[in-house]
Parts: sequence; C-alpha cells; structure tokens
Amino acid sequence: MRLKFKPWADDYIKNNPNLFIRSIEELREYINGSQKICVEVGCGKGKFIRETAIQNPDVKFIAIERYKTVIVSAAQPLEETPIPNLKFFSEDVDTFINDSSLDGKLDTLYLNFSDPWPKKRHIKRRLTYKTKLDLYEKLLAKDGCIKMKTDNQALFEYSLSSFSKSKWDLDNISLDLHATDRENIVTEYEEKFSELGFRICYLEARKVLNE
Amino acid sequence: MRLKFKPWADDYIKNNPNLFIRSIEELREYINGSQKICVEVGCGKGKFIRETAIQNPDVKFIAIERYKTVIVSAAQPLEETPIPNLKFFSEDVDTFINDSSLDGKLDTLYLNFSDPWPKKRHIKRRLTYKTKLDLYEKLLAKDGCIKMKTDNQALFEYSLSSFSKSKWDLDNISLDLHATDRENIVTEYEEKFSELGFRICYLEARKVLNE
Repeated sequence: MRLKFKPWADDYIKNNPNLFIRSIEELREYINGSQKICVEVGCGKGKFIRETAIQNPDVKFIAIERYKTVIVSAAQPLEETPIPNLKFFSEDVDTFINDSSLDGKLDTLYLNFSDPWPKKRHIKRRLTYKTKLDLYEKLLAKDGCIKMKTDNQALFEYSLSSFSKSKWDLDNISLDLHATDRENIVTEYEEKFSELGFRICYLEARKVLNE
Repeated sequence: MRLKFKPWADDYIKNNPNLFIRSIEELREYINGSQKICVEVGCGKGKFIRETAIQNPDVKFIAIERYKTVIVSAAQPLEETPIPNLKFFSEDVDTFINDSSLDGKLDTLYLNFSDPWPKKRHIKRRLTYKTKLDLYEKLLAKDGCIKMKTDNQALFEYSLSSFSKSKWDLDNISLDLHATDRENIVTEYEEKFSELGFRICYLEARKVLNE
C-alpha cells in the first residue's frame, strides 16, 4: 500500500473520539460490558472492517493499524455517520496485545493480507510467527478463532506450518476462497489482487485443548 | 486409473518372491534387521517407489497397493532385475497397519495422489481421516514422517485440517510443488496432471510430542 504522509493525521485522531480509541482507558471503556469483541490486525483502508461491523451490530469491532496515515483513511468515510460498534486504534500489535484488557475476551481476530515479510531474517515480524500466536491465544475467548486471508502463497504455507506446530486446530481451509460459495467480505487489496488472478487463501485457527 | 482385470495377477505374485511380499511372515523376514524402512501406501504404477528405492539403496522400501491388477504393473518392470531394497505387497492399508511388525519402525510413509473420496459419506475412507492418522502414528519411528502429495485441492485442504486437529506438526508445505526447486520424483499420475495445469500440493507431517 502506498503511504502518503498526512501531517494532519494526529490531530484528526485527537479530534474524533467517535471514530478512534486514543488510549488504553478508552479501549476499556469501549469494550466494557460487550458480549462479543472482534479485532482486525492491520485494517488498511478499512473496507472489510466497516462492512463487517455494519453486518454485525451486536458485536464490538476494533480495527488496529499502526500507521496513522493509513488508519485515518480507514476511518474518514465514517466521519459523518460513525458506526457505533466500530472503533479504530492506531497502535502496534504487540503493545495492543500486551495490555490485558482484552485477555480471553476476543471472539475473532482477523488477519487480512498481512505483510508477508518474505526474508528469513524478518520471520519474527510475520503475524503468524509462533510468539505472536501465543499472544493471540491469550486474547481469544474459549471458542475464539483467528481468521486469516492472504494472496501470498509463501506466507500461507508458513502460517499453516506455524499454527500446526503451536498445536492450533485448522478449519475451513481454502486454497482458492473466491472459487467457493462462502460468504466473504473483500478488502480493497483483495479486490485488486484477485482481479489480477491471484488466488486468495483462507484458514480459521482455534486453540482447542486436548481432553 | 483405469483397471484392466488381469486374471494372471494372482499367479504372477505367487511366482515372484523377489518382487512381492505374500504374507506377514515374509514381511517380517524382509524388514528384519533394517535400519530404515519406508512405505508407500497406494503405489499405483510404481514409478515413484522404483526410482526412490534405486536412489536410496540403504533403505528398505515397501509399496502397498490393494489392487493386484495394479500392483503387478508396478512390479513387472523389475522382473528381470529386481531392486533388492524394494518389495510390493498387495494388501489393504488397514490390514497392513494392524499387523504390529512395523510398529515404531517406519521412517517415511508416502501418500501420493490418494483417492480423494470427495463425498462426505466416504470421508472415513480418505487416507488422512483421523483414525488413519492414529494408525500411522503407531507405525512411525520417533522422527518418522508422512510425506503427502496431491493435485486434489479439496483433499489437501481436508488433510491440512485433519493433521492439525490430530496435533501433527506440518512442515515444508507447498501449494505448488513444481514451482519450487525441491527435488521431486514424480509419479505417472503427477506427470500427466501437472502437464494439464494442475498444481501439486505437498506436505510433511510429524507427530512431535509436546515437552
């Protein structure tokens, strides 16, 4: 995604409390009393999470994205009419996870078209690296799951292996999601790259404890 | 694979002890004292296992295939010059596995282009159904692994899920094996279907116990 620096992003976030979570305190306030909480890690331009939130008004959604320049683009279409069950949080995933407010509370964690970090020396940055999976486990509710989509074959192959080695159960795997008849809210990126002929891979991962 | 009934198959197997294992006693005799044993379940026309056995003379190979009509075709090219470390065994996979002679002894179990059994009601017949995986676990040595290839996307998706749910570690996954530079001995079926544009999927599965 091309990033165009937006010097007004900081102020925009500060001035739009209906759209953004600006602190851990605001995060706690937002999720307080919620039955179901879903998070997208790396929301990009936000189409996926906006549409998903509209379709599921009883669920609280949090879209996290560390680049302020990106997250303001995701939130801006809602400036006039915010979605009450969606807030954006410009935060690094590790910082976000390390706060305990969400521990054991997440219903779904979405990983859509995450950066593949193809170089071996960057493997720890992949969002499905083993230490990341341990952190997600901490956040997920008992029946919670990770839903991952990517067009990057190498990242998908890596992730399947990583999940299996951390003993997650994989379900509803598809090597060509758009060839199935499953319901699927597409991201901006997905729209573009599937039109170019890239296959979209999909998986769901749950941490099911052995009896 | 088209099966042409060969009324002479029974006699052929009986008369070629250099090529075939004809009983559990002969199986035990063949593997006796072997350091490394590898098995292909469903060897088809046999190209893969013949070439693999020639490349690895220190390993004992067993090719099992329940259709006698098929297994004789796999063995026939070796009639003049048998490969000392390869024998064919016309046996049902469950019967083969239930015998304890091989328990904990297998280095590799190959599942190449197994029948996908696409109908839900036949799910138990898939060679990666959970009860089958438990049986393989019994056969494999501590560091032993299953190596699976298929062009059938649905079977591969199913198998990834099945392995993960039975807590196997997945490694070296490829969604397009022929696009990689990995060494790969192709089967007759693989040759034909990859030429038709089908992608070959590959995985390795190990049962690693958690510390």
